[in-house]
Amino acid sequence: HLLLGCDTNLKTLTLDTLNPQVKAVEYAVRGPIVIKAGEIERYLEEGGTKPFSEVIKANIGDAHAMGQQPITFLRQVVALCTFPELMDSPSFPEDAKWRARRILQGCGGHSLGSYSASPGVECIRKDIAAYIEQRDEGVPSDWENIYLTTGASDGIMTILRLLVSGKDSSRTGVMIPIPQYPLYSAAISEMDAVQVNYYLDEDNCWALDINELYRAYQAAKLHCQPRVICIINPGNPTGQVQSKKCIEEVLHFAYEENLFVMSDEVYQDNVYTPDCQFHSFKKVLYEMGPEYFNSVELASFHSTSKGYTGECGFRGGYMEVINMDPEVKAQMVKLLSVRLCPPLAGQAAMDVIVNPPQPDEHSYKQFRQEKSSVLGALADKAKLTEQILNAVPGIKCNPVQGAMYAFPRIFIPPKAVEEAKALGMQPDMFYCLRLLEETGICVVPGSGFGQKDGTYHFRMTILPSIEKLKVLLGKVRDFHIRFLKEYSALE
Amino acid sequence: HLLLGCDTNLKTLTLDTLNPQVKAVEYAVRGPIVIKAGEIERYLEEGGTKPFSEVIKANIGDAHAMGQQPITFLRQVVALCTFPELMDSPSFPEDAKWRARRILQGCGGHSLGSYSASPGVECIRKDIAAYIEQRDEGVPSDWENIYLTTGASDGIMTILRLLVSGKDSSRTGVMIPIPQYPLYSAAISEMDAVQVNYYLDEDNCWALDINELYRAYQAAKLHCQPRVICIINPGNPTGQVQSKKCIEEVLHFAYEENLFVMSDEVYQDNVYTPDCQFHSFKKVLYEMGPEYFNSVELASFHSTSKGYTGECGFRGGYMEVINMDPEVKAQMVKLLSVRLCPPLAGQAAMDVIVNPPQPDEHSYKQFRQEKSSVLGALADKAKLTEQILNAVPGIKCNPVQGAMYAFPRIFIPPKAVEEAKALGMQPDMFYCLRLLEETGICVVPGSGFGQKDGTYHFRMTILPSIEKLKVLLGKVRDFHIRFLKEYSALE
Repeated sequence: HLLLGCDTNLKTLTLDTLNPQVKAVEYAVRGPIVIKAGEIERYLEEGGTKPFSEVIKANIGDAHAMGQQPITFLRQVVALCTFPELMDSPSFPEDAKWRARRILQGCGGHSLGSYSASPGVECIRKDIAAYIEQRDEGVPSDWENIYLTTGASDGIMTILRLLVSGKDSSRTGVMIPIPQYPLYSAAISEMDAVQVNYYLDEDNCWALDINELYRAYQAAKLHCQPRVICIINPGNPTGQVQSKKCIEEVLHFAYEENLFVMSDEVYQDNVYTPDCQFHSFKKVLYEMGPEYFNSVELASFHSTSKGYTGECGFRGGYMEVINMDPEVKAQMVKLLSVRLCPPLAGQAAMDVIVNPPQPDEHSYKQFRQEKSSVLGALADKAKLTEQILNAVPGIKCNPVQGAMYAFPRIFIPPKAVEEAKALGMQPDMFYCLRLLEETGICVVPGSGFGQKDGTYHFRMTILPSIEKLKVLLGKVRDFHIRFLKEYSALE
Repeated sequence: HLLLGCDTNLKTLTLDTLNPQVKAVEYAVRGPIVIKAGEIERYLEEGGTKPFSEVIKANIGDAHAMGQQPITFLRQVVALCTFPELMDSPSFPEDAKWRARRILQGCGGHSLGSYSASPGVECIRKDIAAYIEQRDEGVPSDWENIYLTTGASDGIMTILRLLVSGKDSSRTGVMIPIPQYPLYSAAISEMDAVQVNYYLDEDNCWALDINELYRAYQAAKLHCQPRVICIINPGNPTGQVQSKKCIEEVLHFAYEENLFVMSDEVYQDNVYTPDCQFHSFKKVLYEMGPEYFNSVELASFHSTSKGYTGECGFRGGYMEVINMDPEVKAQMVKLLSVRLCPPLAGQAAMDVIVNPPQPDEHSYKQFRQEKSSVLGALADKAKLTEQILNAVPGIKCNPVQGAMYAFPRIFIPPKAVEEAKALGMQPDMFYCLRLLEETGICVVPGSGFGQKDGTYHFRMTILPSIEKLKVLLGKVRDFHIRFLKEYSALE
């Protein structure tokens, strides 16, 4: 051996020897544009100058980072669980204390520092089942079908891992909406499955069209075996809320074609337009009758990160899995057990979400006020975003019916498309980089979520405060007009 | 479609169609014996009778579940981060408050509810680097090489995922000690890599013998490409603490054979015998000189779950990765970003561990007392366990130099081996099931960790209180004598 120091060629692990499936993974929400935003932030901090004074990160659904305040009651319960000496403190309400006591009774040694059972703390699983029954107006939920997860992402990866067979993986088709949340495409790449795209209908408020599902399925069957369909409702990045009829159609389709259904329902509390309502896949399945309810294999996912709590950092979540083969379930629990358990603070946070203060409890008034204040502001911001964007020539934005994002379609002049392509860049990436460089606004190009060829979009969150959001949208408008002018002049 | 209801044959996901790599996973620490223990617990709760009144779970390193109390200071800091209104409370000390304030300043929106950057909160990464420098007596540590993880398991899986190529996975060899902690074998199964066993030397206190490493490597090269060597120091389940000389030999071997080194050092604070000392792989590598220190790719892992804190439920941990190709690092960060970030409460807990109260701080005295009380008790229990087990005929136990487990070798009479085999069971599984059924003590068979053919062991934690541990060991002794008698009488 020579003293070659850091010579990369001698390394064991290089870009050439790296697991190629890792290389294939893309995750736009924290992708190149966000890395660039971080660089600009540091540049500004170090005294550099730009045409703006701060970077506004509208790239990720991270409510607290945008200034949203935590729900007091949730934090009280988690703090009590963390430091039970606070049970003696008169400044914590009794309703928070009894919840904390109950959670701790479910923990080994009555401590948040113990591992829980791999599917989660039993009493929390029971609370979740009770919550689902209430949400679904009496449709039964069995607590043994509930599995706590480390955020919803963890649950989604777990279910996909069961379905995607290693060696034959290139034959397993996973149907996902386009546009999609890129966790799905990333997981598919990592597991080397086949991504089967079904396109949401932008001209119809991003509705899911059942004919398109059949088309995608039939086309995929020629080269893989589609085994699972993923639905995101309310939609991310697209913000639509699915109608009951549409959900029925999807479930009927899954039943007919024997597909496993994964319904990502993390935005179930984020519905803003009065004519829309969240319908859970579970409830709709139940209402379709026993031949459906007793056979369709369904996993639905929820999270502490979204809704009105926005507790992303707690990495809390759960999945409800119905009609799963009991032997497969045992295998899943075994797989979960390798990672031991989801974080206990996240499990506790999840418990508060499914078991919030009741009208006869001390904390109810404050809880209700905080909750409706968050959701009310989000509804206002959803409306505002749509309105301002639609007033810009060359931008068209569907109503933000739910979730936390606008996904406007943007017109990019042919000359700009050419310039982007010459740089080896997606045109909407080029657009978003320019937007970032010129305004400090960080949004994610539509190409990171998937879109119909020749169309361009970006995803922005509606999470900044209303004042900041107005500034942001104004800057987007001015930028877009400048951009159009610059490149149209080149025609 | 007929109304076939739950007919399993029609399911999409069955044991036949399940990802076979999931099926191949085994994880004994929460395996069949632990499931059985849970069943017995429920049976007792429901009023059933057994020759014992409670199940003692010595199967898993879960200190709080065994009654260990949390470190007050750690919980204070995490509670302050969770519920910052407590900053105004006079019952929280200033040294906890400033740490909490500092952590929150590193969080988006100053909230534990924000996502952190995927590698973790920057100031926590810096604290960890400073801790490592101090621990390693000045060997430099770059905070950009530190990645917070969701427990150590998550970091270990991440590094293996980079190294094990999907399609060619059956060609990637992963060298692991035998006996090993079954996270490794489980990950290898899940990723379809080749498990390359090197056997620890039971006759020499489970030391790692460098000749055995070469033997295993040469043998493996005939059918796969060994790319990584995993070491657990202090050992799990074996409890040995590696000598500096041995670590040098391993590192020299890795250097010569161009292997990536993964050193699982989660028990670095759990060293009990006065003649043993923890040496980090990083420090030893540094001392071997620049040709080693600038080339060997090394990832080392730590956790909040072990040591004197035992905060398993927080799922905190970190890895330090040195000499990794910068392009590979960027790919790793991308992979980490798909799961967004490790839980923030776990990151905060990790920060306290690496940045504990200093002698001039208010909380120092209590912290020091709590820490030494936990570690002192563990040292006593390590000694006690070894002594009592070695006094039993047919049991031989190496000294528990470190970690949290005894891994005694047990003599199983040929007639019992026969009976087990007739039941299609590993003899030590048969033994442990009998032990559980007759005494309520839950330990894990050696076969779950790997052992030399024809030898039998079990792993038990030394975590129960000293009173309970004495009872437990007495019951093990009596059971073993009965068992020997019963089966020797059959000869």
